[in-house]
Amino acid sequence: MSEPDYAAGAAYINGRYMPIGEAAIPITDWGYRRSDVTYDVVGVWGGAFFRLDDHLRRFRASMRALRLDPAESDADIRRILIECVRRSGLREAYVAMDCLRGRPRPGETYHPANCRNYLAAFAIPWVWVMSPEMQARGAHLIVATTPRIPEASVDPRAKNFHWADLTRGLFEAHDVGADNCVLLDADGNVTEGPGFNVFMVRDGVVSTPDRGVLEGITRMSVMELCAERGIPAAVRPIPVAEFRDADEIFLATTAGGIMPVSRIDGRRLGNDRPGPIGSALRDLYWAKRGEGWHATPVDYAHELVS
Amino acid sequence: MSEPDYAAGAAYINGRYMPIGEAAIPITDWGYRRSDVTYDVVGVWGGAFFRLDDHLRRFRASMRALRLDPAESDADIRRILIECVRRSGLREAYVAMDCLRGRPRPGETYHPANCRNYLAAFAIPWVWVMSPEMQARGAHLIVATTPRIPEASVDPRAKNFHWADLTRGLFEAHDVGADNCVLLDADGNVTEGPGFNVFMVRDGVVSTPDRGVLEGITRMSVMELCAERGIPAAVRPIPVAEFRDADEIFLATTAGGIMPVSRIDGRRLGNDRPGPIGSALRDLYWAKRGEGWHATPVDYAHELVS
Repeated sequence: MSEPDYAAGAAYINGRYMPIGEAAIPITDWGYRRSDVTYDVVGVWGGAFFRLDDHLRRFRASMRALRLDPAESDADIRRILIECVRRSGLREAYVAMDCLRGRPRPGETYHPANCRNYLAAFAIPWVWVMSPEMQARGAHLIVATTPRIPEASVDPRAKNFHWADLTRGLFEAHDVGADNCVLLDADGNVTEGPGFNVFMVRDGVVSTPDRGVLEGITRMSVMELCAERGIPAAVRPIPVAEFRDADEIFLATTAGGIMPVSRIDGRRLGNDRPGPIGSALRDLYWAKRGEGWHATPVDYAHELVS
Repeated sequence: MSEPDYAAGAAYINGRYMPIGEAAIPITDWGYRRSDVTYDVVGVWGGAFFRLDDHLRRFRASMRALRLDPAESDADIRRILIECVRRSGLREAYVAMDCLRGRPRPGETYHPANCRNYLAAFAIPWVWVMSPEMQARGAHLIVATTPRIPEASVDPRAKNFHWADLTRGLFEAHDVGADNCVLLDADGNVTEGPGFNVFMVRDGVVSTPDRGVLEGITRMSVMELCAERGIPAAVRPIPVAEFRDADEIFLATTAGGIMPVSRIDGRRLGNDRPGPIGSALRDLYWAKRGEGWHATPVDYAHELVS
């Protein structure tokens, strides 16, 4: 028997490693059928994880919020993620961890409390939410008319796959030739976009929404970079009128880092190119990543033993 | 090579039939990863589908609403569902059809417009949303504190797996020893529960919510049965105070038919047993099903040729 080929990516589901092409969710599983699942995504760049333990901490908090409890401890999950990357050999990877509800055992009452929850994880080649070309010119963003699902119904801090509103926003953007979208809450405040947090700059002050959003790890990193550079930064409600009138806008996500925006609803920001503060933060972010900031290097030669 | 064993259920995914145990969704598919999918469920009882073409019509409307377009026509889907049931040999079956977004092709912009959508379907043994024992005593229902996702964010008429609010409601019910839950909208009107529409009876009039709900096929059947029996019925907003003060409550779903409720938030309805109007409608529903009402019988001996 030949070794499985992990070059396209490596996965782990419920106790077993497999090539990514074999990694699949049973069609009857409530993780799919009720989107009863939480997840997290951590990036690997230059052979090292970024803020791995922050992601593990958030993943555990999401699981607790949704009453999901897999067999694996945080130390187990840490080891499994590293092992997925090691097997794939990828130096730049998108690494996901999911905890799925499962399905009630036969004969049990048809209730989520009667399911055996389980872990799935995988490492695949790095995914850019926005291509480097798009980042170089700056993204063209719209404010979608579809409102974000309110946090009273689905808490965005427990990372979830309830993306129908975001997907609709993506089609709204597509229909007017824009790249991407941001959604508002019921009060007309900016929330987030599909897979990223949003920042704006006005009069030299960086701001990001305080509520109705994922507490992003890259968002947190932006705040740290602002502090390091002495750039004033605020976490507060952002009314859409203020957002549309911003000097600069940029986005933050694991799968892209800090990504500049050059147009909002067709209006050109500054010189229709990435703005100075967003660009400086982006350069600093990647420079520090290169220097090992919050890094957990992967030992590709040896499997980690717990 | 031996024939595959379909006794536990038969599935079809993207052009191929397989036993249900092999039916799985790639872990990287947006149908799972963004819950970017619509579905429908149709019941088979006594070897015959119930309102098969009504379900197919609704499924197509859901796909259109979400801009999902699989290779299969309605006639194809009809044939595939019948073939799944035929292969399984099941006389009582829960039959699902999903249309998934897929995933952008390598090199394409990372957008849902760049995905090849595809069909999945399966037939498994009949699933009761509530067990026959629970139906005999009447379900114990609560009004959850978690509000239903608003239709402006996710339209419940396009049947979807955005169930985090409903799942939270199920845990709320579980925590107080109740069986199930119903959710309210932001205005305090009754919407629906996890997988069912809701009806109440007051002063001999049957009512069901008009907005923020799936336009259920069993719900439509209840209205037809009311008309047949000369029972006055209304589709209108139902404020929670009125609902809590109902004479009778019952639920309607494909995977259960008409299911009586005997308690709401701990209050006993009538004599703590299924009420007379709900029970009469339930008996009539099953009697008519037995007589071939809206039935499409399955020919288990021969594969249907389109």
